[in-house]
Amino acid sequence: MTDDREWLGQIKWSADGLVPAIAQDADSHDVLMVAWMNRDALQETLRLGCAVYWSRSRQALWRKGEQSGNEQEIREIRLDCDNDVILLKVEQRGGIACHTGRRSCFHQRLDGGQWRTVEPVLQDPGSIYGSG
Amino acid sequence: MTDDREWLGQIKWSADGLVPAIAQDADSHDVLMVAWMNRDALQETLRLGCAVYWSRSRQALWRKGEQSGNEQEIREIRLDCDNDVILLKVEQRGGIACHTGRRSCFHQRLDGGQWRTVEPVLQDPGSIYGSG
Repeated sequence: MTDDREWLGQIKWSADGLVPAIAQDADSHDVLMVAWMNRDALQETLRLGCAVYWSRSRQALWRKGEQSGNEQEIREIRLDCDNDVILLKVEQRGGIACHTGRRSCFHQRLDGGQWRTVEPVLQDPGSIYGSG
Repeated sequence: MTDDREWLGQIKWSADGLVPAIAQDADSHDVLMVAWMNRDALQETLRLGCAVYWSRSRQALWRKGEQSGNEQEIREIRLDCDNDVILLKVEQRGGIACHTGRRSCFHQRLDGGQWRTVEPVLQDPGSIYGSG
């Protein structure tokens, strides 16, 4: 085991102990989503080999895909030059990262002064998370 | 002119009036950097057709490349499903987004419990910003 403190300590965690983490599809290179990580989330991500985030609303760790099956298998973890943003290069299981059933969360494009949804729903959100 | 209030109002600005903005190379699809935008930064970005961010340290608008010449010409502006992160697809002038003279700010890769720099310096930072 490596001493985790050094590489974790290099990250500039916010006052809340968080940094934003971008998930990028390692094959298509699409930016899939942005979520938050704390130290535990990043350590769990490394341990499990799939993305674990920190839910600010639920104040709990959240393994991406734990409900939907759409896990994000980690290929690579990057850190930016300011040490305050993480980039995960992932294999997106099921090809769907967004809770709306779309491939990517960035499906709204600014076009003529409006945000237009430019990606199709690939899977019914009800079937992903249950409609009950 | 479109009424800006509707599309700007749809964005969930933080209490500080900011959202993170990811710049992605529209051709290579590399994630180049993450910075912050307020309403003015986004409106200026749209008006000029190149990326303008908000510098939290200087508390001022900052046109990317105003010193270095490495501007980011906007191809597309996306918003995520939560309306709180912006994705800019850009043409990166000079091929260098990072102040260290590297292509991307995400040049540190986690490898064996260490962050290793995995991208070369393409341009001397001194020559980009002046060494005086």
